Amino acid sequence: MAEKLTPRATDYSKWYNELVINADLAEHSAVRGCMVIKPYGFAIWEKMRDALDKMFKDTGHQNAYFPLFVPRSFLEKEEGHAEGFAKECAVVTHYRLKVNPDEKGKLMVDSESKLEEELIVRPTSEAIIWNTYKGWIQSYRDLPILINQWANVVRWEMRTRLFLRTAEFLWQEGHTAHASSQEAIAETKQMLEVYADFAERFMAMPVIKGSKSESERFAGALDTMCIEALMQDGKALQAGTSHFLGQNFAKAFDVKFTSKEGVLDYVWATSWGVSTRLMGALIMTHSDDQGLRLPPMLAPIHVVIVPIYKGEEQLATISEKIKPLMTELKAKGITVKYDDDDTKRSGWKFAEYELKGVPVRVAIGPKDLENGTIEIARRDNGTKQTIPMEGASQHIQQLLDEIQKNLFDQALAHRDSHITKVDSYEEFKKLLDEKGGFFLAHWDGSKETEEKVKTETKATIRCLPFDMGMEEGKCMVTGKPSARRVLWARAY
Amino acid sequence: MAEKLTPRATDYSKWYNELVINADLAEHSAVRGCMVIKPYGFAIWEKMRDALDKMFKDTGHQNAYFPLFVPRSFLEKEEGHAEGFAKECAVVTHYRLKVNPDEKGKLMVDSESKLEEELIVRPTSEAIIWNTYKGWIQSYRDLPILINQWANVVRWEMRTRLFLRTAEFLWQEGHTAHASSQEAIAETKQMLEVYADFAERFMAMPVIKGSKSESERFAGALDTMCIEALMQDGKALQAGTSHFLGQNFAKAFDVKFTSKEGVLDYVWATSWGVSTRLMGALIMTHSDDQGLRLPPMLAPIHVVIVPIYKGEEQLATISEKIKPLMTELKAKGITVKYDDDDTKRSGWKFAEYELKGVPVRVAIGPKDLENGTIEIARRDNGTKQTIPMEGASQHIQQLLDEIQKNLFDQALAHRDSHITKVDSYEEFKKLLDEKGGFFLAHWDGSKETEEKVKTETKATIRCLPFDMGMEEGKCMVTGKPSARRVLWARAY
Repeated sequence: MAEKLTPRATDYSKWYNELVINADLAEHSAVRGCMVIKPYGFAIWEKMRDALDKMFKDTGHQNAYFPLFVPRSFLEKEEGHAEGFAKECAVVTHYRLKVNPDEKGKLMVDSESKLEEELIVRPTSEAIIWNTYKGWIQSYRDLPILINQWANVVRWEMRTRLFLRTAEFLWQEGHTAHASSQEAIAETKQMLEVYADFAERFMAMPVIKGSKSESERFAGALDTMCIEALMQDGKALQAGTSHFLGQNFAKAFDVKFTSKEGVLDYVWATSWGVSTRLMGALIMTHSDDQGLRLPPMLAPIHVVIVPIYKGEEQLATISEKIKPLMTELKAKGITVKYDDDDTKRSGWKFAEYELKGVPVRVAIGPKDLENGTIEIARRDNGTKQTIPMEGASQHIQQLLDEIQKNLFDQALAHRDSHITKVDSYEEFKKLLDEKGGFFLAHWDGSKETEEKVKTETKATIRCLPFDMGMEEGKCMVTGKPSARRVLWARAY
Repeated sequence: MAEKLTPRATDYSKWYNELVINADLAEHSAVRGCMVIKPYGFAIWEKMRDALDKMFKDTGHQNAYFPLFVPRSFLEKEEGHAEGFAKECAVVTHYRLKVNPDEKGKLMVDSESKLEEELIVRPTSEAIIWNTYKGWIQSYRDLPILINQWANVVRWEMRTRLFLRTAEFLWQEGHTAHASSQEAIAETKQMLEVYADFAERFMAMPVIKGSKSESERFAGALDTMCIEALMQDGKALQAGTSHFLGQNFAKAFDVKFTSKEGVLDYVWATSWGVSTRLMGALIMTHSDDQGLRLPPMLAPIHVVIVPIYKGEEQLATISEKIKPLMTELKAKGITVKYDDDDTKRSGWKFAEYELKGVPVRVAIGPKDLENGTIEIARRDNGTKQTIPMEGASQHIQQLLDEIQKNLFDQALAHRDSHITKVDSYEEFKKLLDEKGGFFLAHWDGSKETEEKVKTETKATIRCLPFDMGMEEGKCMVTGKPSARRVLWARAY
């Protein structure tokens, strides 16, 4: 393990970057803006992916795979969509390199391989998918189409941060087609609920559900619903979005269906996605100055067992004694690592597994051998206790449930204590700096006011929450009438 | 379902294309050379992926993720590698589009966004990965590195065929780093065994293991081991490769380690991969003129149950009666679909599930209700039998095992009857046309002879098999001495 992390209180951003690197989650690659997701980080992402994938399938969705490339002309077809993504995309213009005649051993673009039409590396797949759906849909009998894709996408970013904002990232994108507006809206809501459920049950991360304001909507959507989480530094993070696309893409790609009543109409659409950004959210929701704190539902290793010994003989005795416990834990579906690496001190190991966020650490030394006990340490609150080896697997199983719950409760308490109602712009600006977090304040509904607040404070409307702020009032900035409070915050 | 498939005997290639489309496995996309993998096809690929992923993890490998893009200069570093891939790659030259001032609503490449160095969409990831490993490896303690990646790759192909040869395809690529040549060679062999085991146990597809001749090696490898399968039309298909890369990539990217003895040396490498091409192999190994025949280990649906009824009341009775069987099957991990769609005739359904290759079809009609029976039909050999409903789940479970075995045995019998020893070039050419399949023949070891045979017959050396042809003789073409027979065939 490297030196200690910069404390969060000193520099939260630096702490985050050091943690991602030191805990072996990811690193910057030699390709501008692209990251390498290392095995330990990828193992967490795999757990997220598998849990989400099951939830998608349980709600009737199937996986499929669509091309990496989107022809330029496809992107042009939906105007808002094109505007949203044209400025940040990787453009393939040629399909061949050739030997550089002027420099030995060097390659250059073969100008004879220029494409007639440029291909865009997908920033999202609405265009290519709706062009495909056109061939699949004639009648209401072909609907609904409920498809999800796990894929890599590229959005050229100038300022990147590991997991939070990278040029290439991994995600899933659901793309569904429906016979009615109501059905598509119900799907949009259903998938937002799936995301919220996943965030809270697996990531132990409380979220606020709501709709985006018009200016924060996805390029091409009529409504963008989102889940918003609060990070420890008081900044918000959008953790997932679910879009009601209306008939925009069906019109752009001319996808019509004949209804039961024999009427020809455009198809209704949704799309929804979460990405490797969730890794950043997970880290910033729970971790501390010692390293990661992983919720057991997503931890690649649940329990690490560290033998404390002098000499090979003692190690052999411990290794033998610990076997039944390991077998019992594995039988319960608990992932165990026994670290008998003789080249590392146990103090080093303790710090390493704290850094890696392993939820439960078991230590067993000579005294434990005498007494038939083990020492158990919780990563979430640092408490230790010595318990009998007998029945320990049952105890550890309960402990993992407790840790999962405790992480959620802590995050919820932090989040709830950082939702502040404010009624004046002065108070808003003051508390934004002093306290941070979410603010429920009235807004006159205009883009101008939204833009003014953003320019002056860097805070944005995170969403119009479904379950909060439903009271009339006056806009905190202009004093004009407001139908409801909206949720503001500075955000990642 | 569409009209009947073109019979294999009439036009094997046409049969294949129609089957892939009609069985809803995949289709061509609007992007040249790229395919859309449809939900039914993707469900089969997911089963392959999950089975392989488990085998990789059981042999100590971890997943990770590396960038989609490879800078041009990286590709240049390993000379053979660059030559192998430069002529078929998608080249990103710009990172932004802008509004076309001359055409309303159109976009164009923003010439101000030209990249200083072009980025290649990965055709394979040795270059970007070895550049990363450089930062991870200093000492023998950092070795071995055993990493796998599931990813999309792009190799610009002029003539594409669904699954068999597409510009973009999905695959896994293992990239390992070792402290010794022996260890890397052992890894190369181990992964070839994993592939062979997967092909035979899951795909029910017998394979021949061997090493490629020098001219058929992977660009940058010292040895390429492969598994070769035989399709029904007598052509071979390379189903997986495992490469011993020696120190080539370590030298190209300057990756050295200090050994236990304190000596500085370059690291030893392997890489190994299989792709969505396996889908093509699966289809062409087993399917018939009625459609797919899927081995139960990879079938998305194991059993389809079709009620035969007149009127809603009878359907309701059948639906009720069949429930316990469905519950029992699911409890055994068997995937069941109950197709009570009232808009389709049962004859249509029978043909549809034959096309889709569902291994077992259960029909239940009024007579079965009276007698407490069901009718079971096997997709592999078309046989039907009526058995008591009681205990049917046990029977079906055994049947699925039998079908898996039968498909393998049939493919093996076909393969084994198409391995022919020949000793003259005349006989070789004659039987290549008349019989097809694999030929074990002597070869003088020269590239010239290999090239001559390829030009004259389109047959290539598929491999130098590990377990066949170990006898001295004379080259069938030149009469020069030959140390062993090698395996020839026309191939996909």
